[in-house]
Amino acid sequence: MTFDDKQNMQIAYEQAQISYNEGGIPIGGCLVAEDGKILSRGYNQRVQKSSAILHGEMSVLENAGRLPGKTYKNCTMYTTLSPCDMCTGAILLYGIKRVVMGENETFVGGEDYLRSKGVEVVNLKDEKCRELMQKFIRENPECWNEDIGV
Amino acid sequence: MTFDDKQNMQIAYEQAQISYNEGGIPIGGCLVAEDGKILSRGYNQRVQKSSAILHGEMSVLENAGRLPGKTYKNCTMYTTLSPCDMCTGAILLYGIKRVVMGENETFVGGEDYLRSKGVEVVNLKDEKCRELMQKFIRENPECWNEDIGV
Repeated sequence: MTFDDKQNMQIAYEQAQISYNEGGIPIGGCLVAEDGKILSRGYNQRVQKSSAILHGEMSVLENAGRLPGKTYKNCTMYTTLSPCDMCTGAILLYGIKRVVMGENETFVGGEDYLRSKGVEVVNLKDEKCRELMQKFIRENPECWNEDIGV
Repeated sequence: MTFDDKQNMQIAYEQAQISYNEGGIPIGGCLVAEDGKILSRGYNQRVQKSSAILHGEMSVLENAGRLPGKTYKNCTMYTTLSPCDMCTGAILLYGIKRVVMGENETFVGGEDYLRSKGVEVVNLKDEKCRELMQKFIRENPECWNEDIGV
């Protein structure tokens, strides 16, 4: 973990908060280049856009727009929650080299698969991320289950 | 392969053709329930919507809208081309039990990973799907590379 990881996770957390305040699933993220430049931010849009694919990380990628493949290669994806299989696959498709998650107590996604493919995976065990997520799940268990295909 | 597989692949191919005629990447698909009902159709929207995530299969899922997790479980995803890592992950997230592809000569995605997770994967080796895709790649090699993160 670096000082920048904490700063960038705060950006991801703020995205999650925006989603929560909109009545949506509070998972947020950002894509950061090696020089520290924030390429994009985003949050889960299942509720807001009736979307089955706009998870937090997917929104981050969508908001970054069309980019040449090489742009992703040295980026870090920050996400408040362990990335699900879909987001794991998107990270692998674009060859993002590093993933920093807020927590994985609420949900464990494709972390082992990412590592097996050479991606560095860091868990910040962030209490704020966990609390916001668990509050949402208590309030909206069915919406959360829908989001993970249960 | 069943008669229905051929019919449903024709629907996926028609989606790919629509995309090609719009100047987009000619990959299409459809999601079909066990009783044969077509739940949604879709095609790659990288060019049309400047999207980094709307691959063919992802558009199919998005066009199906918000669904309860159980709805996906007995579906088949038809796609004109072998699903990339992202689309593979989306199929796993939703527990789609069967994937039928048009071809995998042009590109091999996460087929082995799908099989390792218990998904039935069928390759129709469809000449029309292959020809349309390879025509597009000859005409637009950079766009295709961008779509697979190269």
